[in-house]
Amino acid sequence: MKNYVVGVDVGGQTSKIGVVDVHGNILAQSVIRSDVYGSDADAFISALAEAVEACVKASGQDDIRGIGVGAPNANYYTGQICNAANLAWAANKTVDFAAMLSEKLGGLPVSLTNDANAAAMGEMAYGVAKGLKHFIMITLGTGVGSGIVVDGKLLYGSDGFAGELGHVKVVRSNGRLCGCGGQGCLEAYCSAIGLARTATEWLAASEEPSLLRSVEKITSKDVYDAAKQGDALALRVFDYTGRLLGESFANFVAFSSPEAIVLFGGLARAKEFLYQPMYDAMNENLMKTWKGKIQILFSQLKESDAAILGASALAWDL
Amino acid sequence: MKNYVVGVDVGGQTSKIGVVDVHGNILAQSVIRSDVYGSDADAFISALAEAVEACVKASGQDDIRGIGVGAPNANYYTGQICNAANLAWAANKTVDFAAMLSEKLGGLPVSLTNDANAAAMGEMAYGVAKGLKHFIMITLGTGVGSGIVVDGKLLYGSDGFAGELGHVKVVRSNGRLCGCGGQGCLEAYCSAIGLARTATEWLAASEEPSLLRSVEKITSKDVYDAAKQGDALALRVFDYTGRLLGESFANFVAFSSPEAIVLFGGLARAKEFLYQPMYDAMNENLMKTWKGKIQILFSQLKESDAAILGASALAWDL
Repeated sequence: MKNYVVGVDVGGQTSKIGVVDVHGNILAQSVIRSDVYGSDADAFISALAEAVEACVKASGQDDIRGIGVGAPNANYYTGQICNAANLAWAANKTVDFAAMLSEKLGGLPVSLTNDANAAAMGEMAYGVAKGLKHFIMITLGTGVGSGIVVDGKLLYGSDGFAGELGHVKVVRSNGRLCGCGGQGCLEAYCSAIGLARTATEWLAASEEPSLLRSVEKITSKDVYDAAKQGDALALRVFDYTGRLLGESFANFVAFSSPEAIVLFGGLARAKEFLYQPMYDAMNENLMKTWKGKIQILFSQLKESDAAILGASALAWDL
Repeated sequence: MKNYVVGVDVGGQTSKIGVVDVHGNILAQSVIRSDVYGSDADAFISALAEAVEACVKASGQDDIRGIGVGAPNANYYTGQICNAANLAWAANKTVDFAAMLSEKLGGLPVSLTNDANAAAMGEMAYGVAKGLKHFIMITLGTGVGSGIVVDGKLLYGSDGFAGELGHVKVVRSNGRLCGCGGQGCLEAYCSAIGLARTATEWLAASEEPSLLRSVEKITSKDVYDAAKQGDALALRVFDYTGRLLGESFANFVAFSSPEAIVLFGGLARAKEFLYQPMYDAMNENLMKTWKGKIQILFSQLKESDAAILGASALAWDL
């Protein structure tokens, strides 16, 4: 048995690479740019393959079992990245990512999944979901992603795209336009961008005084800072966002009856403002059999490591 | 290998029993009352065991592999029926149904699941879901039930209660009170009772002429008959109900990415009025990757046989 794996987190701006042992220790890591290859997927994957080889060399280990990759719009079944708006070399086309990377690495096995699924794998292997067999990972970042774990395995569905919970509809009439082209999606309200948009809309709709009125282009960080200082409007924005998430979680529980909802990502760091409305709204909407029984857990992995660990966890099954 | 199984469908008024071969032929069947035992679960289960023995005898077969039972509020993991409002002998308590029935039948293995899960098993083994690995069964009857199939297996979740899609919230503010105690549940709008309630409410809220105005206590059958005669209000009630279902299906697809939604139950017979609004609303709300790709299938099993076949399908895994 080979004792080490490589985890790769492909992001819009940078991609992180790490060599990981069975205990989740990262023996060596590096970062390359993802955004300097234009539409040339082959060039990016070649650079990534070189960086992987250098990272393996730096780790001092050579018995590598395989490579796990987390990426936006990635499909576990096909090993492809399809129409990833944030990756110029994979926008509006399909890239045979796993096959191409494997070929450039002398046939080393490569397993690919979307970034939220990778995060779920990471939490299950090394994080707060250790020991859980049934949970739903929700990533609250620029977007809202999800990875659903059933009986200890990721739910991929018929085509590999299961678990797009950022795109369930939470507002049914005149909902906000979402990046996916739909209207009223959870992501349009409860991502970092959605939260900032709520604040911006509420400020425009009233004369209520708020610290946020002095900010030109409001970000989720601004809303967080204002809430920290007790700003009433900012606090209500978190309350609203938390409640929408909690109501949605209740629906998710009715689907797969998980032990826990696990939160990860930039916005999840606002636990102090999100947890209570989220927990209350979820329990108000749960059936009796689940009330008070479903945990809401927050990732405790270091964010810089979590993506690598998550992706690497995928490679143990290779 | 034993070549026959027994399927039992436990309902509020009657329970149906059948001996089934591997091809889904029902060799013998019988029916007993479920509602004449008061709160005495032991008395009902004794009567059921006797009826099973008689039915096996009548079938002329004795190599019975096991018994599959579908029942309301039944739990696959524990073999228990819990707080089943429609079964007097299992209301407000927990009955060790599978263990008790097995004991009365000399240790013959008994597997228990809720009725919507049993319906899903039946469709997969003998019905329109034959060959599908990923689908969601929605039963549209007095209530709305569901059975979720992932990779050819029922999704039970952490506690055996996964798949309560009748209780996802479809109306978020001032939603109708549901039998589960919650508000705004899919079941409160899209069950046979929910549909009749919509018609009743709409009649009260307007002066619009309708054939339904002459009906004293409107049932779903009345709304169906009126729609058949071209009644505009009745047609709009079906349109509204179908659209609510379709919007909900879109959210379900984002969860488990099934090949199909399969409909069963009394209200599913109104396919002519429900299908189009259901299909349109689902596709309007699906992400691009799924638009036009998810089938909505209607059960074609004879309703009297389907429940027995569904429950019996469970016993093949024993």
